[in-house]
Amino acid sequence: MAESEQRVPRPHVVILGGGFAGIYAARGLRDAPVRVTLIDRRNHHLFQPMLYQVAAAALSPSDIASPIRSIVSGQPNTDVVLGEVTAIDPAAKRIELGDSGSISYDYLVCAPGSRHSYFGHEEWESAAPGLKSVEDALEIRRRVLIAFERAEREPDPAVRRALLTFVVVGGGPTGVEMAGTLAELRKYALRKDFRHIDPQEAVVMLVEGGDRLLSAYPEELQRKTVTILERLGVDVRFRTLVTEVRRDGVIASGVEIPSHCIIWAAGNLASPILRTLGAPLDRAGRVIVEPDCTIPAHPEVFVLGDAAIYRDRDLKTGAEGVLPNIAPVAIQMGQYAARIIRDEVRNIPKDPIAADPRLTARIPFNLSRESRRPFRYWNKGQLAVIGRGQAVADIWRFHFSGFLAWLIWVFVHVFFLIGFRNRFVVLFEWAYSYITFRRGARLITGETAEHPVAVAGVPAGR
Amino acid sequence: MAESEQRVPRPHVVILGGGFAGIYAARGLRDAPVRVTLIDRRNHHLFQPMLYQVAAAALSPSDIASPIRSIVSGQPNTDVVLGEVTAIDPAAKRIELGDSGSISYDYLVCAPGSRHSYFGHEEWESAAPGLKSVEDALEIRRRVLIAFERAEREPDPAVRRALLTFVVVGGGPTGVEMAGTLAELRKYALRKDFRHIDPQEAVVMLVEGGDRLLSAYPEELQRKTVTILERLGVDVRFRTLVTEVRRDGVIASGVEIPSHCIIWAAGNLASPILRTLGAPLDRAGRVIVEPDCTIPAHPEVFVLGDAAIYRDRDLKTGAEGVLPNIAPVAIQMGQYAARIIRDEVRNIPKDPIAADPRLTARIPFNLSRESRRPFRYWNKGQLAVIGRGQAVADIWRFHFSGFLAWLIWVFVHVFFLIGFRNRFVVLFEWAYSYITFRRGARLITGETAEHPVAVAGVPAGR
Repeated sequence: MAESEQRVPRPHVVILGGGFAGIYAARGLRDAPVRVTLIDRRNHHLFQPMLYQVAAAALSPSDIASPIRSIVSGQPNTDVVLGEVTAIDPAAKRIELGDSGSISYDYLVCAPGSRHSYFGHEEWESAAPGLKSVEDALEIRRRVLIAFERAEREPDPAVRRALLTFVVVGGGPTGVEMAGTLAELRKYALRKDFRHIDPQEAVVMLVEGGDRLLSAYPEELQRKTVTILERLGVDVRFRTLVTEVRRDGVIASGVEIPSHCIIWAAGNLASPILRTLGAPLDRAGRVIVEPDCTIPAHPEVFVLGDAAIYRDRDLKTGAEGVLPNIAPVAIQMGQYAARIIRDEVRNIPKDPIAADPRLTARIPFNLSRESRRPFRYWNKGQLAVIGRGQAVADIWRFHFSGFLAWLIWVFVHVFFLIGFRNRFVVLFEWAYSYITFRRGARLITGETAEHPVAVAGVPAGR
Repeated sequence: MAESEQRVPRPHVVILGGGFAGIYAARGLRDAPVRVTLIDRRNHHLFQPMLYQVAAAALSPSDIASPIRSIVSGQPNTDVVLGEVTAIDPAAKRIELGDSGSISYDYLVCAPGSRHSYFGHEEWESAAPGLKSVEDALEIRRRVLIAFERAEREPDPAVRRALLTFVVVGGGPTGVEMAGTLAELRKYALRKDFRHIDPQEAVVMLVEGGDRLLSAYPEELQRKTVTILERLGVDVRFRTLVTEVRRDGVIASGVEIPSHCIIWAAGNLASPILRTLGAPLDRAGRVIVEPDCTIPAHPEVFVLGDAAIYRDRDLKTGAEGVLPNIAPVAIQMGQYAARIIRDEVRNIPKDPIAADPRLTARIPFNLSRESRRPFRYWNKGQLAVIGRGQAVADIWRFHFSGFLAWLIWVFVHVFFLIGFRNRFVVLFEWAYSYITFRRGARLITGETAEHPVAVAGVPAGR
């Protein structure tokens, strides 16, 4: 890799992370006279806003994930590396890939995403997994389905009740969507499948520390959300702080809630790799970025998406605030960074001199913060789905709830799903489960020490 | 469970295994005056003949698997238990479920399937996984995709060649289908995705100890199969015995073949649980069954599918032989066992006396081997798919190959896929990948010690 770098004088843009920000940055550089290297430790881009549907057995992982290589296969200037970045050295303009060497850059687009924050109780993670990756979602799906299976065979009513209690911690969009879809799984999809338990007896509890759900939404929709969840039978608990998480339950505001399936949707912690940037961080480890989404003293280093904290004025209300860590912000940040880079390299010729081995000097380009217009988030609105035909939407000045909001949600999400194939399969799966109330992806796969699924010497379906 | 058993006097049929034999036996008892308990250690029935398509990233697990509970949710007499059978006691008519107690039966339908046989070299399994379960298929998919990713970054040409060599061991249907689909993956689906390697340079090798592929097929189709595979670029090696399997290659007939992705399709070993039956076994651990698919001295114990070895006369050719361990045989055995049981319990009234707690004596039924007609396999033919529009079919006296055989294969397989949803999704996926040459399920998920995908401190796509 080092060798080909010296031979090619075009500016090198390294993108860390194939999430929304990284993918949209790469796509925006499609026709630019730069070389792009997109690095992720996974081979797929994940449509994370729908990940909870995998956790709830409604969709398969491949319905909402596309190989990063396929997404950028049409842009010859882009190289994809499956690898793990272990450090960033902004002074040397270089990233380290552990044992696999290092890569130099002219521009760095840093969008490594985030994991969950357990607020200092990282030991809670094994008892209360969060929902960020395909593996997370499959683990939650496994736990939910195993809980019903164990309850079906459990003679002790107290244990059975604990097995059939699902606790979702955190009343943001992920928590609300997860609670709504679990309530429906129990009510419709599993209705006729058990002989000794009634899945409808299962309790879905949504535990929120504050006094409202979806805090970024208008109050009217927050109230509506509670109404819809309660109509689905979700037990919504406000001002309830989780102080302990164990395998067999949580303690929330002093009350013990026995549960064998706890889902964490309460907080984010940005990737630890950001610490190596030497830039100011907030409490969640996010980089406090400049108006052009870069870090102080390094206009060539962009930090985007969940990794960034950006102060902005709402174009609608004029209020100062911090942009939420949601997909539309990440997408627009990726597009913005690509536009800045395109602008600054526009004097570089696009002809194939890049392949000329005699050229060793890099062609200069205009890297300068002064000429950049600050990033502006265009808030098109926000949407959260709660259940079958039930959603809330806040679009410009219009607030929708119920079926219309749900329809808007379906079309917006399917439209943004990357890749033709996924859109159709997902639409089909939704139509199917909407009409029949069934869920197609109810497989228990994988294994953990606690729930082995493949032990030698016992019967298996062949 | 013990309590409800005493209260219900209907004969109790316990089915071990939710594969083809077990599912078809359960379905055949739908309207019979018996109680059925179907036990599997997995929650899903797997359409195993298409599992190689999951391994080759063409389909998702949920496309070819259905929850067993859903399949039998319409038959109120059937109970599904997710559990692991640890022993069978034919004298006491009881099975043991490890710590979860035991279950008594009047009839036992034992169809636990098989795993791979490494012919005494069980240590080869980690280097050369086989293809029986969803987990197996996902592991192979991961290894295949990781091999291309590592090759893309590998500077050493010898290591790169080893990474791009895929060795399939065994020339039966699974080996042939796996080799054909890998050849196509490399040729079409991955064609444009890499910058430093050409996926078409990858070598797919099919290693067979004997001197033909698909030994159960007519010679004409065997030759045709070799022609089709070689046209796809598969390196077919006959009379080649694998004597050593390592992580970085195999030694086959004295020749070392460096490879980082070895797939085992060479032999089966029936479930060890069968040893507890006290019945005669063959070398592969299968039970040598009586003409009515039961074991000697226990006409109430059926052994079906991969677990059984059955001597039969071919209705077409009149030749004596052993029935192959394929899905149609398992299906017909399951239907046969259900028919026998239905016949023998037909005098039991169907009205809801079963729920009457005052009745504690079991109603007698006519369990007798004498009145049973022996099992007869109706050989409708056999089909193997080799690649895009390429298959071989031996149906009655007609031999097909090429596109027509492939079309027959598509419709036969989709028709037998259990569940409405899967049929449509699978047809759609096939049509999609047939038209576009792409594969939709190219996700690298899960983790092993060797290829961690989730290490703290490194960027992830969010």
